[in-house]
Amino acid sequence: MATEAEERALRYRRAQSVTRAEEITAKENKARRLQVDKPVHKPRDSLFSWSSEFTNFSGLVNWGFLMLTIGGLRLCLENFLKYGILVNPIEWIIVLTGYNEGHSQHYPSVILLIFSVVPAVIALLIEKAIAFDILRQKVGITLHILNIVFVISLPVVVLHFKSQDFSFVGTTTVCMIYLILFLKLWSYCHTNFWCKNSMGAKSSKNKLRRQSLSAPNYNELTNAENEQTLEDEMNHEMAAAGLVRYPDNLNLKDLFYFLLAPTLCYELNFPRTTRIRKRFLIKRVIELVFGVNLVLALFQQWMIPSVTNAVDPFSEMNVVKITERLLKLAVPNHLIWLCFFYLSFHSFLNLMGELLHFADRNFYNDWWNANNIAVFWSSWNRPVHMWAVRHVYIPITEKGYGKSNASIVVFFISAFFHEYLVSVPLQMFRIWAFLGMMAQPPLSVISRFAEAKLGPRWGNIIVWSSLILGQPLAIMMYYHDYALVHLTAKH
Amino acid sequence: MATEAEERALRYRRAQSVTRAEEITAKENKARRLQVDKPVHKPRDSLFSWSSEFTNFSGLVNWGFLMLTIGGLRLCLENFLKYGILVNPIEWIIVLTGYNEGHSQHYPSVILLIFSVVPAVIALLIEKAIAFDILRQKVGITLHILNIVFVISLPVVVLHFKSQDFSFVGTTTVCMIYLILFLKLWSYCHTNFWCKNSMGAKSSKNKLRRQSLSAPNYNELTNAENEQTLEDEMNHEMAAAGLVRYPDNLNLKDLFYFLLAPTLCYELNFPRTTRIRKRFLIKRVIELVFGVNLVLALFQQWMIPSVTNAVDPFSEMNVVKITERLLKLAVPNHLIWLCFFYLSFHSFLNLMGELLHFADRNFYNDWWNANNIAVFWSSWNRPVHMWAVRHVYIPITEKGYGKSNASIVVFFISAFFHEYLVSVPLQMFRIWAFLGMMAQPPLSVISRFAEAKLGPRWGNIIVWSSLILGQPLAIMMYYHDYALVHLTAKH
Repeated sequence: MATEAEERALRYRRAQSVTRAEEITAKENKARRLQVDKPVHKPRDSLFSWSSEFTNFSGLVNWGFLMLTIGGLRLCLENFLKYGILVNPIEWIIVLTGYNEGHSQHYPSVILLIFSVVPAVIALLIEKAIAFDILRQKVGITLHILNIVFVISLPVVVLHFKSQDFSFVGTTTVCMIYLILFLKLWSYCHTNFWCKNSMGAKSSKNKLRRQSLSAPNYNELTNAENEQTLEDEMNHEMAAAGLVRYPDNLNLKDLFYFLLAPTLCYELNFPRTTRIRKRFLIKRVIELVFGVNLVLALFQQWMIPSVTNAVDPFSEMNVVKITERLLKLAVPNHLIWLCFFYLSFHSFLNLMGELLHFADRNFYNDWWNANNIAVFWSSWNRPVHMWAVRHVYIPITEKGYGKSNASIVVFFISAFFHEYLVSVPLQMFRIWAFLGMMAQPPLSVISRFAEAKLGPRWGNIIVWSSLILGQPLAIMMYYHDYALVHLTAKH
Repeated sequence: MATEAEERALRYRRAQSVTRAEEITAKENKARRLQVDKPVHKPRDSLFSWSSEFTNFSGLVNWGFLMLTIGGLRLCLENFLKYGILVNPIEWIIVLTGYNEGHSQHYPSVILLIFSVVPAVIALLIEKAIAFDILRQKVGITLHILNIVFVISLPVVVLHFKSQDFSFVGTTTVCMIYLILFLKLWSYCHTNFWCKNSMGAKSSKNKLRRQSLSAPNYNELTNAENEQTLEDEMNHEMAAAGLVRYPDNLNLKDLFYFLLAPTLCYELNFPRTTRIRKRFLIKRVIELVFGVNLVLALFQQWMIPSVTNAVDPFSEMNVVKITERLLKLAVPNHLIWLCFFYLSFHSFLNLMGELLHFADRNFYNDWWNANNIAVFWSSWNRPVHMWAVRHVYIPITEKGYGKSNASIVVFFISAFFHEYLVSVPLQMFRIWAFLGMMAQPPLSVISRFAEAKLGPRWGNIIVWSSLILGQPLAIMMYYHDYALVHLTAKH
């Protein structure tokens, strides 16, 4: 009897450990089928046991999004129960236009925006002068540099002397527009500089060719003839494709097209579309109208109370409370940033592109799948990334400096402009935004390490974490300092 | 010039609308390459535009889980900042043992648990009497029914007269154990009834065979001989496989093995494992120790404050507040339920199975992927499901009643026992649990409709929603009524 039991057990063990039910011998199956007690059990593992080799947990993705929805819905209800409705469209108008009963009614933001045409026209005039050899190129470049330094300094100076005439949104808009103008004019000068130089190189080659004809050297002659053929071919091709050539591009229409176009990189012949898709346009306009209202509502209803509530814990330096406030702030801030991203980079830039027949709509790549921070920075804002690569990174590497040096210069410039966009409107020169940006290269190394060691999923999680938590941290820093300055001013 | 521009535009339009960059002719590419302004733009769509056909949003899954983690972490911190640490292990011991200074120190729960052996032994004795024809089968079945009705009624009666001697956890445990005993004894009697009947059928066949031998009918003889051969073969096979046959199974060892085994369905020969895997056992024990502590801590720290805070809005019938409280309660309740599920159905039942060499570990299927509610109910609690199918559903359908009738009977019994497990410990006969269970068949129809019309994902979302939101709703109902009864009792 004992040996029988052992034998039976051995059979079950084999059945369980090798390939489960299939391994039970046909004989045994037959014996079980003949039993009258209707057996229902068979040897098998629980799904959570490793030995079950079960891996289908796809339903948990639905669970995750459902839990997020429920959490979000509850936060909304809690917010309304606590604060009532704070959304006030009249306040938006005041904030947006800078209209304020107590102060002057000069709309200084609007004046500054209109004035931005002046440096653009100056840049065109300098460029024309260089093209027709009225100005020597070196002098022209010096004038260009003075012009774009003027562009970037103007808001700083005006805001310093007339800060009480501006609304916060007004100043931010002005700074943003002047920064874009700065980048665009840099690109405009740089590109025209390349064109002018290539023309100079050609004319010197032509001179060389004439010289070599007078003192014939057959090898050189063949080269020069080849070059001449190539140049002729190029002229022919470009004429066939209907492309504009330098210096025909130097006119007001071309300049203003570039200033309005959704790109920071100037080129003589932008790819164009033939028609404006009306449905597409209407969709983008509707997105903008609803989206801007949503962002403003979220800001008033959720963001401002969260930020206000977070100042005291920051002053007290209570680590647990700071963390709790930071996490509380992270959610609305991140949602607003996502809305802002979509509205700016999809709705607004596509709207401009459609209106201007601008065919290159690569305003963002799939940064949401980025597995390290370097990929994120090169994906989320394509216009700035393309500008930085074309006008900073490649010129530096072509001069023979290393790639990592070029990267650091790019991040440095980026950090400077992030700081510019925060400090100038706030009239408060701290370095939190600058430090935040300069922390990106080391963070990038960490995320690349995580990607290599722990797999791409963890790289992606680090990218998202730095995005979700980094921003509210910077906001808290600035708001804390801002509140401190304004409180001490009142006392 | 106009025709040229049109031609160019046409080329770009074709390039954009047909297959993007690849379609730009080689000629045009060459012309662009020859340009000196280093062009970087090419016609392409934004990724969010439908025409881009981009669908990779896999990074958003990481985003979802990160947002959940951040939300969870913040809720923890908020909880600690609001309530401090409420976890108190000494209280657990009081609750678990029912030890309470003010009351008697008789541990009535423990006495009731030990007493549960008595009806089990009675069932064995009745079964023995039936097997050896001491009792007629009908009388035996009547005695069995009286016995199991006694099992299910005992906690109700004892708790009604001695409710102040019991802790809530103690009474719940007693009810749960007696309910399991009820289901197990039902299965034990039912299975032995099948065995006894098949023996009776065989002996009547034997009688028939002897009759047909005395009045030879060749056809019948052949049949009978065939049957005899089959029976002999069966005996042979079963002996070879070392299987126990009725009535050899009717002994105390077999009965107690079944009572301890992690199943509700009795059979004569359970599949067995040969050895106890020590690492597996240790893991399950560690899970249980940590898990039970985690559940108790979550309960004290998170669940009790949430439930307590939710009573007033329920009394006020303020819909917005009720919804907010319900969603707030849903999160800890759901997490506790998930922990409870894992601990009961994976850790505890696998531990029992491993200790008892019980090889069938199918305690749950992948209910988290269930696309409709019927699948969920047949997956999450396999022991009960198997019991209901084997001892209620199949017997009813075999009697010729329809499948839907059988399903409704199963849900009715299930609803009754859910109500039993809540009402008896609370000493408060409401019908919320019963109604909750009886709402499942209509909900199942809705979820199957959603699955068919909107796709399996929406079916799964409905299953999760009913799980996450249904439970806290029932809990709120009971707690509200409970608080009301106890408040009116105090006044």
